[in-house]
Amino acid sequence: MSTTTPTTTACCIAAVRDSLDPAAADEIARGYKALGDATRLRLLALVAGGDGGEACVCDLTGPVGLSQATVSHHLKILVEAGLLSRERRGTWSYYAVQQDRLDDLGRMLLVSSNGA
Amino acid sequence: MSTTTPTTTACCIAAVRDSLDPAAADEIARGYKALGDATRLRLLALVAGGDGGEACVCDLTGPVGLSQATVSHHLKILVEAGLLSRERRGTWSYYAVQQDRLDDLGRMLLVSSNGA
Repeated sequence: MSTTTPTTTACCIAAVRDSLDPAAADEIARGYKALGDATRLRLLALVAGGDGGEACVCDLTGPVGLSQATVSHHLKILVEAGLLSRERRGTWSYYAVQQDRLDDLGRMLLVSSNGA
Repeated sequence: MSTTTPTTTACCIAAVRDSLDPAAADEIARGYKALGDATRLRLLALVAGGDGGEACVCDLTGPVGLSQATVSHHLKILVEAGLLSRERRGTWSYYAVQQDRLDDLGRMLLVSSNGA
């Protein structure tokens, strides 16, 4: 309600000190950007819920109701962002969730949110 | 190495059961999409590191080296995704990190990564 004079100087010094390094921010942003699509979130959940925490593209097209080409495109983005690994076995590629990367991206939000 | 026959049926049943609800996935994806940009991550870090965990747009343009219009555009996306709140005080708008929303998005990755 009151028009308090903001402590601009104190704010800015703390803000610059706590800001992310630009190169680090790019790498982190790539991870969140890959997560920023509902289909990719569903694919990630499907892979995580797959037998042994992995899934074949052949198991994913049905549940999401999209073509194999579209599913493969989304999986490629998730692999490039380090969220899934891909292993070729016989005819098919198998995808597994990269837990360490997800943990890093998850914890970062918890830390950021505490203002640390 | 071996061309193991994948246990397709078991995989698919588990996968469908654990998949995200499409509407919920949209809402979550919007949060990650807003985080999927290096400038927005830096703005979020600057706001979190601001005095009292908040910052004025006037304090953010300098550190990120962008125009006020560009910074305001990014802040708007963060507000619309529920990651920042916005409060008008006198001439300026003040932004504060929405910790609960960040916590939710962070914890979801930790849970997903455990295959739960």
